[in-house]
Amino acid sequence: MTQKKHVSKVKVRYAETDQMGVVHHSNYPIYCELARTEWLETFGVSYREMEENGIMLPLSNLNVDYKKPAKYNDELFIITSLKKLVGARIEFAYRIEDSNKQLVAQVFTTLVFVDMKSGRPTRCPEDLFKLLS
Amino acid sequence: MTQKKHVSKVKVRYAETDQMGVVHHSNYPIYCELARTEWLETFGVSYREMEENGIMLPLSNLNVDYKKPAKYNDELFIITSLKKLVGARIEFAYRIEDSNKQLVAQVFTTLVFVDMKSGRPTRCPEDLFKLLS
Amino acid sequence: MTQKKHVSKVKVRYAETDQMGVVHHSNYPIYCELARTEWLETFGVSYREMEENGIMLPLSNLNVDYKKPAKYNDELFIITSLKKLVGARIEFAYRIEDSNKQLVAQVFTTLVFVDMKSGRPTRCPEDLFKLLS
Amino acid sequence: MTQKKHVSKVKVRYAETDQMGVVHHSNYPIYCELARTEWLETFGVSYREMEENGIMLPLSNLNVDYKKPAKYNDELFIITSLKKLVGARIEFAYRIEDSNKQLVAQVFTTLVFVDMKSGRPTRCPEDLFKLLS
Repeated sequence: MTQKKHVSKVKVRYAETDQMGVVHHSNYPIYCELARTEWLETFGVSYREMEENGIMLPLSNLNVDYKKPAKYNDELFIITSLKKLVGARIEFAYRIEDSNKQLVAQVFTTLVFVDMKSGRPTRCPEDLFKLLS
Repeated sequence: MTQKKHVSKVKVRYAETDQMGVVHHSNYPIYCELARTEWLETFGVSYREMEENGIMLPLSNLNVDYKKPAKYNDELFIITSLKKLVGARIEFAYRIEDSNKQLVAQVFTTLVFVDMKSGRPTRCPEDLFKLLS
Repeated sequence: MTQKKHVSKVKVRYAETDQMGVVHHSNYPIYCELARTEWLETFGVSYREMEENGIMLPLSNLNVDYKKPAKYNDELFIITSLKKLVGARIEFAYRIEDSNKQLVAQVFTTLVFVDMKSGRPTRCPEDLFKLLS
Repeated sequence: MTQKKHVSKVKVRYAETDQMGVVHHSNYPIYCELARTEWLETFGVSYREMEENGIMLPLSNLNVDYKKPAKYNDELFIITSLKKLVGARIEFAYRIEDSNKQLVAQVFTTLVFVDMKSGRPTRCPEDLFKLLS
């Protein structure tokens, strides 16, 4: 299985802060979603095209450990890696760091390949499986 | 044209605040969207069914006057009324008040009936037009 | 420790859907946040006042199992219960059901009482501890 | 008054789409907010520092004309320019284009310099006024 890692960068938006003065916790899954998309693109895979071809990839599990608050205008780095790819399930790990390489959050997601016509889980598309193996 | 008004209620969510300690300005259009849906429901019209029947209602213009900040856990009241209904266009006004009846924001939206198949503007469905006239 | 459960109700907003036609996964933590606030209010505790008194309650862990997609305008019921309260940490479980009592998502959160002045974890305020014991 | 324009780039996030399959209208003010911040940064002005120095800049008016839907993963370009700077008020215009230079939305915002201590409008800080004149 590929060990490839990809680093995505986001800049914290004002709307993502809350009245504690830090990034609201619901934003981290959104950062990871774009990091995951970019990770796939490094293999030449477009998630947008995958959906247009009838395969979608909803989350079945999300786990976030919040380690250090992030603030408005901070640059965050999301380091994405593949953890597991079995049958219809694919698991990713994400390490979110600030510009001092301090850990902001650690995230794990499990996603399931779903056939949009049937609405049922389906094996990882053959092409993608080969690329990631 | 109907003069009917409907009052919708929302309670400000923590995630809707920003680091100024008030509701972030991007949330007001979301409040108005649910108020508009409720207003339609008072006529027995379901926006969800309208979309299922192939008509959608995207915004073409949004105008918001921010008058007074709202805070976490505040109850807000959105008073929706119809302003104009001509051809494919429908215009609403919204008065957002706090629990002391003070004006928080004044919003206007113009929406367009769109045929989801063709992607083109279409006249207001006959049934709805009759209800609102 | 209290076994009290509280049922909160939300109606899915249009803005909470994504192009899969279902509620985007980042909204569930927001639903749970308001459910947790309402649960506390059943004990006469206002989270807003807690913050005004210098204690905040950020998340340290979030875990979501997504079981069944929810759709626009669905009514969802969030059943909140306390799982653990030790030192500065408080853990909640949430069962999110649709109107047919089908499980939509199961959520666990760990939160930490933090003294806003020092920025450091602090024991659960005495008053609250008594109420919840 | 400066005629300087700045082009900001955003890539549409999945969470920003709705079930119409396009960017939900509430996201455009968020794009403009980051564009405005970047525009200020081209003058060496940090909005984050401005707030740390006790001046905040909330919106008093927002106007959006939606011209063409944007889709998931689209690159959008926000061209920001200053329209007016008088007393405590500052007005910006934003032209949002897709990668084919087609107009997606046109946005105007009026913001007000507010002294965070008094909570009252205050003139544009002298330093900033000179930079922008």
